[in-house]
Amino acid sequence: MDLGISPKIAPVLEQVKAFIANEITPLEEEFLAEIDVGDRWSFTGRQTEILEGLKNKAKAQGLWNFFLTDGEQGSGLTTVEYAYLAEEMGKSHIAAEVFNCAAPDTGNMEVLYKYGSEAQKKQWLEPLLNGEIRSAYAMTEPGVASSDATNISTHAVLDGDEWVINGEKHYISGAGDPRCKILIVMVKTDPDAPKHLQQSQILVPMDTPGVENLRAMNVFAMDDAPHGHMHQRYTNVRVPKDNIILGPGRGFEISQGRLGPGRIHHCMRALGAAERALQLLCERAVSRKAFGKPLAQLGGNIDIIANARMDIEMGRLLTLKAAWMMDNVDPKEARVWISMIKTAVPNISIRIVDQAIQMFGALGVSQDTPLANMYMAQRTLRLADGPDEVHRMVVGRNELRDYMKAQQAASSGDA
Amino acid sequence: MDLGISPKIAPVLEQVKAFIANEITPLEEEFLAEIDVGDRWSFTGRQTEILEGLKNKAKAQGLWNFFLTDGEQGSGLTTVEYAYLAEEMGKSHIAAEVFNCAAPDTGNMEVLYKYGSEAQKKQWLEPLLNGEIRSAYAMTEPGVASSDATNISTHAVLDGDEWVINGEKHYISGAGDPRCKILIVMVKTDPDAPKHLQQSQILVPMDTPGVENLRAMNVFAMDDAPHGHMHQRYTNVRVPKDNIILGPGRGFEISQGRLGPGRIHHCMRALGAAERALQLLCERAVSRKAFGKPLAQLGGNIDIIANARMDIEMGRLLTLKAAWMMDNVDPKEARVWISMIKTAVPNISIRIVDQAIQMFGALGVSQDTPLANMYMAQRTLRLADGPDEVHRMVVGRNELRDYMKAQQAASSGDA
Amino acid sequence: MDLGISPKIAPVLEQVKAFIANEITPLEEEFLAEIDVGDRWSFTGRQTEILEGLKNKAKAQGLWNFFLTDGEQGSGLTTVEYAYLAEEMGKSHIAAEVFNCAAPDTGNMEVLYKYGSEAQKKQWLEPLLNGEIRSAYAMTEPGVASSDATNISTHAVLDGDEWVINGEKHYISGAGDPRCKILIVMVKTDPDAPKHLQQSQILVPMDTPGVENLRAMNVFAMDDAPHGHMHQRYTNVRVPKDNIILGPGRGFEISQGRLGPGRIHHCMRALGAAERALQLLCERAVSRKAFGKPLAQLGGNIDIIANARMDIEMGRLLTLKAAWMMDNVDPKEARVWISMIKTAVPNISIRIVDQAIQMFGALGVSQDTPLANMYMAQRTLRLADGPDEVHRMVVGRNELRDYMKAQQAASSGDA
Amino acid sequence: MDLGISPKIAPVLEQVKAFIANEITPLEEEFLAEIDVGDRWSFTGRQTEILEGLKNKAKAQGLWNFFLTDGEQGSGLTTVEYAYLAEEMGKSHIAAEVFNCAAPDTGNMEVLYKYGSEAQKKQWLEPLLNGEIRSAYAMTEPGVASSDATNISTHAVLDGDEWVINGEKHYISGAGDPRCKILIVMVKTDPDAPKHLQQSQILVPMDTPGVENLRAMNVFAMDDAPHGHMHQRYTNVRVPKDNIILGPGRGFEISQGRLGPGRIHHCMRALGAAERALQLLCERAVSRKAFGKPLAQLGGNIDIIANARMDIEMGRLLTLKAAWMMDNVDPKEARVWISMIKTAVPNISIRIVDQAIQMFGALGVSQDTPLANMYMAQRTLRLADGPDEVHRMVVGRNELRDYMKAQQAASSGDA
Repeated sequence: MDLGISPKIAPVLEQVKAFIANEITPLEEEFLAEIDVGDRWSFTGRQTEILEGLKNKAKAQGLWNFFLTDGEQGSGLTTVEYAYLAEEMGKSHIAAEVFNCAAPDTGNMEVLYKYGSEAQKKQWLEPLLNGEIRSAYAMTEPGVASSDATNISTHAVLDGDEWVINGEKHYISGAGDPRCKILIVMVKTDPDAPKHLQQSQILVPMDTPGVENLRAMNVFAMDDAPHGHMHQRYTNVRVPKDNIILGPGRGFEISQGRLGPGRIHHCMRALGAAERALQLLCERAVSRKAFGKPLAQLGGNIDIIANARMDIEMGRLLTLKAAWMMDNVDPKEARVWISMIKTAVPNISIRIVDQAIQMFGALGVSQDTPLANMYMAQRTLRLADGPDEVHRMVVGRNELRDYMKAQQAASSGDA
Repeated sequence: MDLGISPKIAPVLEQVKAFIANEITPLEEEFLAEIDVGDRWSFTGRQTEILEGLKNKAKAQGLWNFFLTDGEQGSGLTTVEYAYLAEEMGKSHIAAEVFNCAAPDTGNMEVLYKYGSEAQKKQWLEPLLNGEIRSAYAMTEPGVASSDATNISTHAVLDGDEWVINGEKHYISGAGDPRCKILIVMVKTDPDAPKHLQQSQILVPMDTPGVENLRAMNVFAMDDAPHGHMHQRYTNVRVPKDNIILGPGRGFEISQGRLGPGRIHHCMRALGAAERALQLLCERAVSRKAFGKPLAQLGGNIDIIANARMDIEMGRLLTLKAAWMMDNVDPKEARVWISMIKTAVPNISIRIVDQAIQMFGALGVSQDTPLANMYMAQRTLRLADGPDEVHRMVVGRNELRDYMKAQQAASSGDA
Repeated sequence: MDLGISPKIAPVLEQVKAFIANEITPLEEEFLAEIDVGDRWSFTGRQTEILEGLKNKAKAQGLWNFFLTDGEQGSGLTTVEYAYLAEEMGKSHIAAEVFNCAAPDTGNMEVLYKYGSEAQKKQWLEPLLNGEIRSAYAMTEPGVASSDATNISTHAVLDGDEWVINGEKHYISGAGDPRCKILIVMVKTDPDAPKHLQQSQILVPMDTPGVENLRAMNVFAMDDAPHGHMHQRYTNVRVPKDNIILGPGRGFEISQGRLGPGRIHHCMRALGAAERALQLLCERAVSRKAFGKPLAQLGGNIDIIANARMDIEMGRLLTLKAAWMMDNVDPKEARVWISMIKTAVPNISIRIVDQAIQMFGALGVSQDTPLANMYMAQRTLRLADGPDEVHRMVVGRNELRDYMKAQQAASSGDA
Repeated sequence: MDLGISPKIAPVLEQVKAFIANEITPLEEEFLAEIDVGDRWSFTGRQTEILEGLKNKAKAQGLWNFFLTDGEQGSGLTTVEYAYLAEEMGKSHIAAEVFNCAAPDTGNMEVLYKYGSEAQKKQWLEPLLNGEIRSAYAMTEPGVASSDATNISTHAVLDGDEWVINGEKHYISGAGDPRCKILIVMVKTDPDAPKHLQQSQILVPMDTPGVENLRAMNVFAMDDAPHGHMHQRYTNVRVPKDNIILGPGRGFEISQGRLGPGRIHHCMRALGAAERALQLLCERAVSRKAFGKPLAQLGGNIDIIANARMDIEMGRLLTLKAAWMMDNVDPKEARVWISMIKTAVPNISIRIVDQAIQMFGALGVSQDTPLANMYMAQRTLRLADGPDEVHRMVVGRNELRDYMKAQQAASSGDA
């Protein structure tokens, strides 16, 4: 179980670090400031220039599509190898996209790669892999507990050669971006089928009549423009019959396949965020003085720093092991490990970002440090792709499985 | 030590609750929505209409200036009595202002009431008590640890009959509001005096030439327009010599007197926020189902609710006792109790709001519940008016005082 | 809601403090050492001499039976008043018994006082009130979840004029003491009655044939000799029909009445233990040096001390309010408050004792400080008289009650 | 960085598991019961028979001295490989000794192996490696902060060809066992030397005149007889000059070399204890019912189980990485990792044991489960070989090192 930096990935990791430091970081602030200029929901002018410029450079250096473990179209990396790269991307606001490794596209590309028809791949996977368009994934609905995927109410009915879709979804990340051209929409296609065979996933081009961005959902006070977490309504949206992925009733199966990697990538990047927060915290602790001493020497600050270091190391090792399980064992077994990191890691990153905020005082919640934004982004990870509570239930039940069997055997033996 | 609802306050408390429920709550959402219409930093039209209407009604019913414990100009309530009212105000975004009990005006009115000259009272206290103008308090500076008040660098020099002020302050809450007419600015007037006699507080009308709002500081992603937490620059700002409060070198003394009540009011309102968050949490827990059961019956949710109830009760009793100390003992002794609640209570309210967010899932961080805003507001309380760390130091040192004396006596006895 | 020290209790509190300091503390260590001399389960010689001497002195000064709020036979104190005294007793290992306020006798005396017949009172309550004998309460059984009182399996069958009792109980505190003369035993008398009417409580003299102390149960590695937490077996134990308290089927009702005061007294004494632990912690923090500084100045120790002070104050106020509820409102309402303190307070005292242990290093777990014993005693409070989990359930359900009614009303309105 | 079970260790691990299950476990209870028969400080009769029998069997199967990574006299295992075995030993009370891998002998053997002279090895290392004798390590002193090794006051003076030792030590684990034949005593030999060159380590046979076991120190209420944590006094204890290890002034250096492996072994075994506690907790959770449901389905128990699993996995991975660092990098760098696990792991194991106690109710603190003993043993790990606080300081300072250098460089650049 080698969890270290492989000889293969070591030089790539150095390249990625250097690219972030030398190419991305110098432009990042300008890019972010640009969002507030003019229409916040456009994506034009200087924004495009910066981002596409960086993407082209990265692609030219082969720093591209790391997430895709296939060696032909993707990077051929193991999940463990990718973890080291993803963590670095987590330290920057835009690095993941620069290397074409940003959610939700990565998950969507994986879906198309694994389950898409040749025609679907040609039309949508190719431009996504080339970084020419962006995409979104419409699953969560207002009004139902979306942690239980069988609840969804948006439905699609076959009418001749077309699916007719009606319903509402919200928190569709990325659907605000004008470059977003394609949606994968989770719909109910057969309410009478067994619980996990009622859903399907259908490709819906953003410009299909009847697709409507109602509003942007906030994340705390952020709207994340122009990316956006959109609330959409579908009114008699018609798409060709062939836009279904894998076929009717396969929606739940696809989402299971999609969420594993997505969750693990979130955790990898969360560790990057935690490292960055700890770095800021330490810089502040040694440079800021109160009562005649640097903050590092006051109260329990040294303990906070030590605990942060331990927590990051433990969270990283757990994430690497989950990645290793993903690469080496049955996906069902790996799923428990993904639930573990999905609970453990964001709680670690949130705590450290929060402690960094505290160390910075009022500046910590201001626009003068990236900490407030990091906090809000990390906090949503405890809700997105299944709240902590659901993942703990997965882990707890798995732990109890054998004990329950033994108990049942013993009880029936009693009878 | 009667910490209960006194016969005197009981009917007032009912009136306040009724006023909030019947008058304020129905208009609150509209008021908040109005902020995003047109120039977010103006305070006009429908906003003015709603708020001034409510203020007039409240004043007409005598629900006004509760915070001021003087019986002539204020309410004549004890701090314990006021606590029950302030908690109710903490459940609403605008109630405190409707009853003319909003920070930072309350603190500023107290300063003027206790330390102001007759002329200063006439000019600024009266319109403040009447709710005709608003005010701000400029203490925190960029670049120094403001938890240590002796650090400030903005300075005032006497030039003839005028103070000439130069420097920068930030996080000046309320200075963005066009109704804010007067600043109390903490300045250094004598760098050569003993550490706690170097500072003075000077009244600076907002329209004095040289006073400049550079920008609004964010609190997470909120700018809190039109109230605002402003970053100001003072360039050769000239005010009459008599604008100094109490006289040169008295600034630290005044700030000590000002912060006590301010901190206790924050805690009272924080408990209101915690109660409201718990209410939302409970409503969600019984109404939302997942896996066939209401959330209240899943996992550790019942424990979360129980712990929240206990924490609120403990936090409230501690706050009431601190209020009682404020009313009954030496301010120096009361100060330790204020440091206790200033640490304990916001940590309680933050935790409960955070748990309510978790119970709501994605909606918890959205604009569709007040929780995200509550979180951001509560989180700043761990930083404002002294971070947790400083207040814990006050409490810890006070606890150790007698032991240290005994230890010193014993050690010197050894020698 | 006066939670302060009343004028009536103030001088008594001083007397109790003085008595503990001047009379009890000087003999306490000798008393404890005496236990290991000879047969640890005897209670003779010097042990008797010390304890009976102290009891006589206390009784002579009227420092006696404080717990009984009746003014004729007891102290006539309110529960709030008693709380201040009980806290002091919690700082000493034997003070509670010296003032005839020790568990489980206090609970047993209350049962007899409230529910006993005249004959039962004459025979057992009088010598207990006089401190002439001790008693035990046999409820918990091996093999069933005793937090659910309806589970008990020890049963009593009426045979002519006698109850015949068979079964096993364990963790019967005090039944190891040779001075323990009477047991109150919870038994099942009617397995066919409704769930809460199946149980009865029967007085069983310790010397009744068939009553057998099987062994002492440990609390961690302590057997608490000679007091003991005994495991008993009842084999055809025969007692007169009239030994039943209040009558058949009233057992559950009695235990409800008994446990309220017992739990509140535990919490009061737990606060005394917490105060003592904090005192030891502070003494250590100022006197012990490492790396050239007193421990108080190292790492997060000052925060630990500050948090301990806040937690104790909050726990005490909550306990006083629960006591006040006990004195002033319906017992059903008070019960929720008792569940709150029963959960909150021992968790506070355990944490502080644990932190004091940590501050003392190896000495903290040794016999050279009282901390290890305090830890073990406090830790059992999270299990005794209902584990935390059950009390949290009580508090949580009470919190949700109105929300559930509203939800049900809303749901049925939907239909 | 392979942290998995190597092909080499996999079959050994199976052998060790089988040996514990089939040979040790069936005799363990009898062995422990035997301690209370007759003189608790003897080690004779049935105790000897059981333990020596098991040792002989284990040695015959080559399950012996795993801890020693040298391939000639020890096992030739890596520290990572040993970790998997040590964890298994941590689940049993006596397994470590059966495989000749018990503290404090392992540390003492390492000292002799690394630093002993040929004569010292012949006389003491050989019988220790053969499991013929036992040993103790006398470092901690009453009255000084032993986490700061420079504090020790026991001193040795050269008198002709002999060291004359005077002083007191306590918490000398294993010195109560009659089979303990040799002490390594940390002494001050040159009070005028630089701070870290004042100490030496000297071999003192237990039967040397002047060596006196004053008493057994308790760990909570346990005396751990016959092993014992002894308080010893040395009165003019004379040993040959050559009994010094490595030479005068090398004591601190030796203790640094000794403590690394000792700490890592403690953590490995602590994980075994945590796993065993979680197993007991789960068995209880599925088999015990309250309110009609197994405990596993009540309240937050499933979350407790899930969190325990995550914490164990994280703690284990961190321990394995620390072991890997020990095997592969500079000891100075590895030391930080050891401080990390020394803090993180016992806190995890303590928490899980405590939660298991809670799940068992009163039985959890009784002698009928091993949990109370496990709790007391695990709790001492937060104190032994350096308290958490000292290890956090090591980790925190290491984290800050580069930031402080950068800060100093920047500051001096300012000047």
